[in-house]
This record gives sequence, C-alpha cells and structure tokens, in this order.
Amino acid sequence: MPAFDSLNTWAAVQAIRQRGPVIHNITNFVVMNTTANALLALGASPVMAHAEEEMADMVAIASALVINIGTLNQPWVKSMFKAAEHAANRGLPIVLDPVGAGATPYRTNTVRALVAATRPTIIRGNASEIMALCGDQVTTKGVDSSEASQDAVGAAQALHKSLGSVICVSGETDYIVGGGELVRIRNGHPLMTRVTGLGCTATALCGAFAAVTSDPARAAAQAMAVMGIAGEMAAAKAEGPGTLQMHFLDVLFRLTEDDITRRLRLGP
Amino acid sequence: MPAFDSLNTWAAVQAIRQRGPVIHNITNFVVMNTTANALLALGASPVMAHAEEEMADMVAIASALVINIGTLNQPWVKSMFKAAEHAANRGLPIVLDPVGAGATPYRTNTVRALVAATRPTIIRGNASEIMALCGDQVTTKGVDSSEASQDAVGAAQALHKSLGSVICVSGETDYIVGGGELVRIRNGHPLMTRVTGLGCTATALCGAFAAVTSDPARAAAQAMAVMGIAGEMAAAKAEGPGTLQMHFLDVLFRLTEDDITRRLRLGP
Amino acid sequence: MPAFDSLNTWAAVQAIRQRGPVIHNITNFVVMNTTANALLALGASPVMAHAEEEMADMVAIASALVINIGTLNQPWVKSMFKAAEHAANRGLPIVLDPVGAGATPYRTNTVRALVAATRPTIIRGNASEIMALCGDQVTTKGVDSSEASQDAVGAAQALHKSLGSVICVSGETDYIVGGGELVRIRNGHPLMTRVTGLGCTATALCGAFAAVTSDPARAAAQAMAVMGIAGEMAAAKAEGPGTLQMHFLDVLFRLTEDDITRRLRLGP
Repeated sequence: MPAFDSLNTWAAVQAIRQRGPVIHNITNFVVMNTTANALLALGASPVMAHAEEEMADMVAIASALVINIGTLNQPWVKSMFKAAEHAANRGLPIVLDPVGAGATPYRTNTVRALVAATRPTIIRGNASEIMALCGDQVTTKGVDSSEASQDAVGAAQALHKSLGSVICVSGETDYIVGGGELVRIRNGHPLMTRVTGLGCTATALCGAFAAVTSDPARAAAQAMAVMGIAGEMAAAKAEGPGTLQMHFLDVLFRLTEDDITRRLRLGP
Repeated sequence: MPAFDSLNTWAAVQAIRQRGPVIHNITNFVVMNTTANALLALGASPVMAHAEEEMADMVAIASALVINIGTLNQPWVKSMFKAAEHAANRGLPIVLDPVGAGATPYRTNTVRALVAATRPTIIRGNASEIMALCGDQVTTKGVDSSEASQDAVGAAQALHKSLGSVICVSGETDYIVGGGELVRIRNGHPLMTRVTGLGCTATALCGAFAAVTSDPARAAAQAMAVMGIAGEMAAAKAEGPGTLQMHFLDVLFRLTEDDITRRLRLGP
Repeated sequence: MPAFDSLNTWAAVQAIRQRGPVIHNITNFVVMNTTANALLALGASPVMAHAEEEMADMVAIASALVINIGTLNQPWVKSMFKAAEHAANRGLPIVLDPVGAGATPYRTNTVRALVAATRPTIIRGNASEIMALCGDQVTTKGVDSSEASQDAVGAAQALHKSLGSVICVSGETDYIVGGGELVRIRNGHPLMTRVTGLGCTATALCGAFAAVTSDPARAAAQAMAVMGIAGEMAAAKAEGPGTLQMHFLDVLFRLTEDDITRRLRLGP
C-alpha cells in the first residue's frame, strides 16, 4: 500500500491530466520547446505567445500565466507587464521565474519592477536569484546559482512577508515558503543541473499545478515534488544529460501514484 | 511485394533525398529546432530566416516557403508578407500554418490577411484553426484543437473553393481538400499529440514535398502520409513523448518504400 | 597506455569541468537549446542573452563571447557589436560563427562588418561561409556548404593573414589556420550533417576551450577534436539523427582521456 502523499500531489496530477489546463507562457528562447513538451507530457495544454496585441485575449483562455525572463528584452518585458495585469484582473495564478536575477542590473531591476507591479502568486528561482530579488549582494555564475538553496531561505521569508507571494527556492533541497510551515523537498538528482532549462520547467509546472490547486504553496510543492521525482527516475535510466532529458518527458507522461508516494521525500 | 503506393510517396521521398531542396521557414520559436531536424532527417536543407532585409534573397535560393505564425509579432508578420510576395513572384510553393487561429483575434485577423494577400499553395492546420480561418465560431484550447478533424471538412472545402489553396486538416484522420477527390489518411498515433510541434513539422514537410511534387494536393497527402507512418513507427518503439520525438527523427531518416506501402492507410 | 594527445585536449576538458567557465552566447533561435546543453554537458556554464541593456554586464562575468548570426536581425546585430566591443576591451576571446554567409548579401555584409569591427579571436564556419567571408564567389545551399572544406583553406589563410584571427573550416576534415602549422582533424561522422546546429555547437565549444586555453589555434583544434570524437562515438550508438543528438550530449558528459587519445586523428 502506498504511503500517504501529504501534498496531495497525485490528485493534482490527475486533475491536470483530466482538465488539460491551458498554461500561457511568456518564456525564453532556450527552453520554449522543452517546457512546452514537459507541460504536454504532464497533461497540460501549453501556449507560448508574446505579442502585445494578443496578451489580453490569450490570458482570457488560460488557467495560469508563467513569466520567465531568461532572454528578456524590452518588447517582451512590455508584454510581460501587460499579460500580468490582465491575469491579475482575472484572478489567474501568476508564476514568475527571475532567471539570472543578480547577473546584470538590467535583469535585477526588471524583475523587481515586475514583482512590484504584479505580486506574483509564486516566484521560483535558484538561491542566487531569490537572494538578488531580495536585495542581497550575490556573486552569480550567469544563470547558474553560486549559493546553496538553504542560504536563500531567509531571503525567501523576507520576500514572502513583503509581497505575499509563495517563494520557491530550488536546489539540492527545494524550499517552499508560504503562509504555513516551511516545506522542504529532498528529491532530484545532480545530473539535472547538466540539462538546460529544468529550472524553467519547474516554473512552468508550478503554473500547471497552480491551475488545479487553489493553495499556491501546495501547488508549488506539488510541482517541485513531481520535478524531483521525475528527475531522479529519469536519472536512474540515463547515461548522461541527453538521455536524462528524454526519459524525463517519458516519466512525466507515465507518472503513477505509486511513484509519488514511494519516492516523495519531505523535510526535515 | 509491397502494395501499390497510390500517392507516389516513395518517389517523392527519394527525390527529396537526392535533391536536398532548400526549404525557407519563417516559423515559431518553439519548433525551430525540431522542424529543422525533421527536414534534415527527411533529406531536405532547411533555412530559418526572418530578417526583412534578406527575405527576397533567401526566397531566391529556396524551393519552397513555409510560414508558421506560432509565436507571431509585428516585425515577423511583416517579413512573412514580404517573403510570400517574393515567393509568389517566383512561382514557389507557399505553405501556411495558422497556429492558434481562433485563439485570439490578433492571430485570426493576421492569418486571414496573410491568406488573402498570398493565396498559399497549401494551408495545414488542425480542425479549430481551419474552422476559424473559414469564419466559423470556434472555442479553442489555445493552440490545441477543440474539434475533431472531420468537423472541419466543410470549412476546408469552402476555403478551397474561395482561395484555390489545398487545405489539409490534420487530426486522428487527416483530410486533404484539393481540386480532386477528398483524400483521407488514417495513419498516426495518439501519443503524437503529447509532443509539441508535430503539427508544425507536418507543415514543414508539406513544404519539402511541394518542392518535389508539382500537384500540391498530392504533395500535402505525401507529407501527411510520411508524418503518420513515421509517427506510428516511432510510437511503437517509444515509452512516452520523449522517446517518441527521438525515434521519429530516426524513422524519417531510415524510412523505406516498404514502410510506406505496408503502412499507408488511405480513406475511406 | 593511451597515445600522446598532441593538442593537450584532455587537460583542457578537465579545466573546463573544474572551472565551469561562463560562456556568453548571442546565438540563433534554432540552436539555443542544443548549444546550451552541449556547453553544460562539457562542463561549462552557458548564458544566452541579447538585450543591448545588459551586454556590458553579461560580458563582464563571462570568460568568452560566442556570436552566431544564424537568425540575425538588426536589434540582435546591434547587441553583437556592443558585446564584442566590451569583450575586446576586457581581452576576452571572441568566437564568431558566420552562419549562412554567402547565402544573402545581408548576411555577408553584416558578418564582414562584424569581423572588421571586432577582429574575432576565432572564426569557425563551413567552407562556403569562409569563402564568402573572404570575398570569393560561392553558390550556397542556404546554411549548408556547397564546397568541400579543403577548397576553403586558401580563403582561410588569406583571412588569417588579413585579420590575425584563427580560422577554422569544418567539414569531413576540419582545418585550423592560425599562426603555426595548418592543423587537420579527421574525426567526425557523416550522420552529424543530418542534425541541425552541430556546426553552431562546434563554435560554442570553441568558446569554452578558448576560455581555458590561451593559444586560440590550440583551443579551436581542441574544440574540433572533441566535436569529432564525441560525434563519431555517438554515431556508433545511433540509429539516426534523433538518437545521435541524444548520445552526443551523453558522450560529451562522459568523455575520458582514453576516448581522446585513442580516437584523435590529426593530419596529414
């Protein structure tokens, strides 16, 4: 008999597969294909669209909005603000990925302005990005974190307090800071850091789970649980980052209740 | 002895492999890599280019033009019009993919204007997109169809009558509406809907076949036959959408006459 | 006992894995994902960024700059010039991929202007591109070469003489033209030409090796050696271009000293 799944992740996976929620992504060029594929494999219906002219209409048919600044420039940022405004008006969950915050002032300032204007439902980043967002001085390695995830828990708590957003810091342990108790998820595999865009995929999955789970801290935890579990199952079959990426999509597609309840490693 | 291949698909595949026609794609960010790889695996020579400054020159070295509005915005749309104008002047086949038509007025209006100005040789879309293009009211799921392909045959026939374009509606059964008899292709596999961009790949392959087959309805049917056959062969070896995508390219590269004649399922 | 590795490639691979140099790429939409994955698999830390506002800051944290004009347009070209200027001021290696030079005057003129302004440390292209850059009349097949690599050695030598840049012509045999003796590398596999972006990947890898090897001709040769060796190892396990691409990343990640010394085929 499978152990109790305290995050209710399996019910959420089933809901995504049944409803196929439309997830509107304004994301970066590097990961558009792989995050669309991850959302499809999970059972959601991804849309990638960035033209200012259609932001209101695309948001209107979506169940969640995912904004990722990985390859930002001004016209895209303008559309991000516009989409977020419409999503907020419709009460849609907004998930933000501050890719590379701290690496350049342009990124840091843009993402801070986005956060201030949109108060995202969930912000998911690595430790460097969350610390940069909080105003901490960080040395970054471009878009890769130079800090361990536990070192960003204080910044995450400060951000949550000031914004009300759920803050998810991903790393060897993932931390989810919301209204309640700090959630720690200890799934995943080091090989995942050698595949580009798995952090962005985690953010996109936060959007899918937020579309079916009303509590955003719970939704973020479900997404990180599925990422970590699917990642470690894929890594077990992989010979390197190429095969990992391929198996990851297969595992997402075939994920069972038993996979989740047997593998989920919460706290402490 | 292989059965008769009534669409002459194998001869067309051989022609593509021998001639390596240059296919100029103005397509979306999600699928650029995967459609380029599919064209290469088939034997064609893909070019992805969108700068207005080089549209005339790039069209001049191409054997077909493929336009896909998946992640459209104004500068790209401008280049699409320009490339189509030059392609029409040179008598090149133009293949159009109205990704997400019906999802937003911006998409629907842009694609209608493109169609009116360029009278594409072939238009390939899912049922929702073809119905939206025809002016039918549709409810869409973003870029995924909410209608079955047979429900769009009437719209396809109306579009063909008014434009002269070959209309290809893809779905569980693919319908090709041209001057002659309605062609139905019953190949493919449901898992293909869980890989992003296989519809866009079908459109790109229409371009490759149109570059070597003068009858555009025949070319579209050949492309859909190869898509469906390669897709079901890949699905037979796949454990999910990740492996399907990988095997799909291998199968395209290794496709034999026997694969086509034994597997092709035409009408009724 | 492994044979002597005259290019010192293994030491450079180890240095990349240990240091994880940040490689700043301004590259094309087709290959962003696959080149980021190749750099990660090798051990480097890729950044893809193109906004003019952050070029100076991104270059400041990078160990090499890679510029690839595959899907160029004016705003991107502006950022390429800006990034190259900052990289030159910081003494960073600049690697340029003149994708499709010769295919359209816009490409040829843009890349010539880039070369004149930035004097790249390394230029890597196929034969058609290098010949076009040198001013030779070439007939191109879009972004694929219509010439054999040995036919471009003269153009490469002329370019090296006028610019001082190391010129790397890739093809069945790769030629590296620098200050010293002409280096020929005879690794690789024909199936690699059926995967999009492996040329662009070679260029990105030149950036990673230039970040750890001070002699740019040596760095380019190391990159081409690793590309060719990993490509032929992946091809040996592949059933087509789909599996080749996946195995290629695994092989890069797992590459050993023994793989290099046993397989490297230099000259004559």
